[in-house]
Amino acid sequence: MTERHFHEQLQSLKERLMEMAALVEDAISKSIQALVARDDALAENVVKRDDAINRLEITIDHISLRLLALQQPMAVDLRFITSAMKINNDLERMGDHAVNIAQLAILLSQENHLKPLDNLPEMAEITQTMVRESLRSFVEADEKLARNVCRRDDDVDRFDDRIFHELLSCMIRDSANIPRAVHLVLISKNLERIADLSTNIAEEVIFIYKARNIKHHREDVPWKDMDIEDVRSRS
Amino acid sequence: MTERHFHEQLQSLKERLMEMAALVEDAISKSIQALVARDDALAENVVKRDDAINRLEITIDHISLRLLALQQPMAVDLRFITSAMKINNDLERMGDHAVNIAQLAILLSQENHLKPLDNLPEMAEITQTMVRESLRSFVEADEKLARNVCRRDDDVDRFDDRIFHELLSCMIRDSANIPRAVHLVLISKNLERIADLSTNIAEEVIFIYKARNIKHHREDVPWKDMDIEDVRSRS
Repeated sequence: MTERHFHEQLQSLKERLMEMAALVEDAISKSIQALVARDDALAENVVKRDDAINRLEITIDHISLRLLALQQPMAVDLRFITSAMKINNDLERMGDHAVNIAQLAILLSQENHLKPLDNLPEMAEITQTMVRESLRSFVEADEKLARNVCRRDDDVDRFDDRIFHELLSCMIRDSANIPRAVHLVLISKNLERIADLSTNIAEEVIFIYKARNIKHHREDVPWKDMDIEDVRSRS
Repeated sequence: MTERHFHEQLQSLKERLMEMAALVEDAISKSIQALVARDDALAENVVKRDDAINRLEITIDHISLRLLALQQPMAVDLRFITSAMKINNDLERMGDHAVNIAQLAILLSQENHLKPLDNLPEMAEITQTMVRESLRSFVEADEKLARNVCRRDDDVDRFDDRIFHELLSCMIRDSANIPRAVHLVLISKNLERIADLSTNIAEEVIFIYKARNIKHHREDVPWKDMDIEDVRSRS
């Protein structure tokens, strides 16, 4: 594999990851649309299209393993490829959460809406932005954008908290609301998990490009011994 | 790095992963104990000890990256190391779920127990076994054990379903039960996610040792083009 070929393959890896993120974003958006519009066909479409996400996961894994096996990349490229494999895993997980939401939407479609549902589309929109921007920060090496994603996670948590408490009140007010309200709690929790996974990706981005690890609030400690280039030259 | 040194490092990677799994298993066990015994100190201990899991995650990532950079491993070893990095990520995620359970246990510790809580310790025990066995199947290359883990996921899903419906009845029977019951639903969902993540690891194991991918029920399709050894020899 020539140097040029390697960079073409790396470019293809980036494009596939952006494609995967777009599929996941679309699945989140459609699952919430299906919930709001009580559109079972749309929800079933989300469930069906998860297979495309799963197939793309396998393809991306494949491209990554080939790059590692054939090119034996150094330092930054090595970190990029192993991170791509983790991010790929995270995106597939997000697709599963969108499927969960779609399945809950089908359960809810026979019933009248409860008011706190009003907040879910906005929460879903922030979450979709987090998915898109965490991936963009990865492929464009944009650390500032990655930090934005991390900050936005707090907004999603606040939405989740507010929705949770409104739904609790709904249930206490009228026990007829209980099954619907519990399902909406679970939808909110699924969105919150997607936001967490996006934050995970953003943390990974900061890790790659800074060679320091802000995960787990260790931001001020550069990752010593992490300079693989250096380790390799001594070996 | 000599061949012997490489295998020592690989061994150390396996040991660290088993250590990480043991910490996660312990966190799950203690979070449920804390819930049952209404023991806030124990729950806070789980929250505090999550830092050890997070630090071990960084160490394992570090060892894996060094192995990839220094040794440029082929085929099975390459797959083993990239899978170790994904599994590491999954284990850290499980630790976060145990923390969620511990925090929910603290919220519940001032209240009387609800009956469906009786099922949670048993569900937690199956989940812990899944964590332990998925990791054992990985380090011992035991495909049969991995398949057992996948099967056990259905038991956990059944527990989750049963607990969910019992808790719904509890809430409808008496609105005073609602806040407690909703928190218990979330605990059950956290256990269910841990079981899912263990299943993910087991699927990864089957992938590594079979070079075929049973993920997403594509069991009958061997992963063509996946023979990196072969690809490499042609490059």
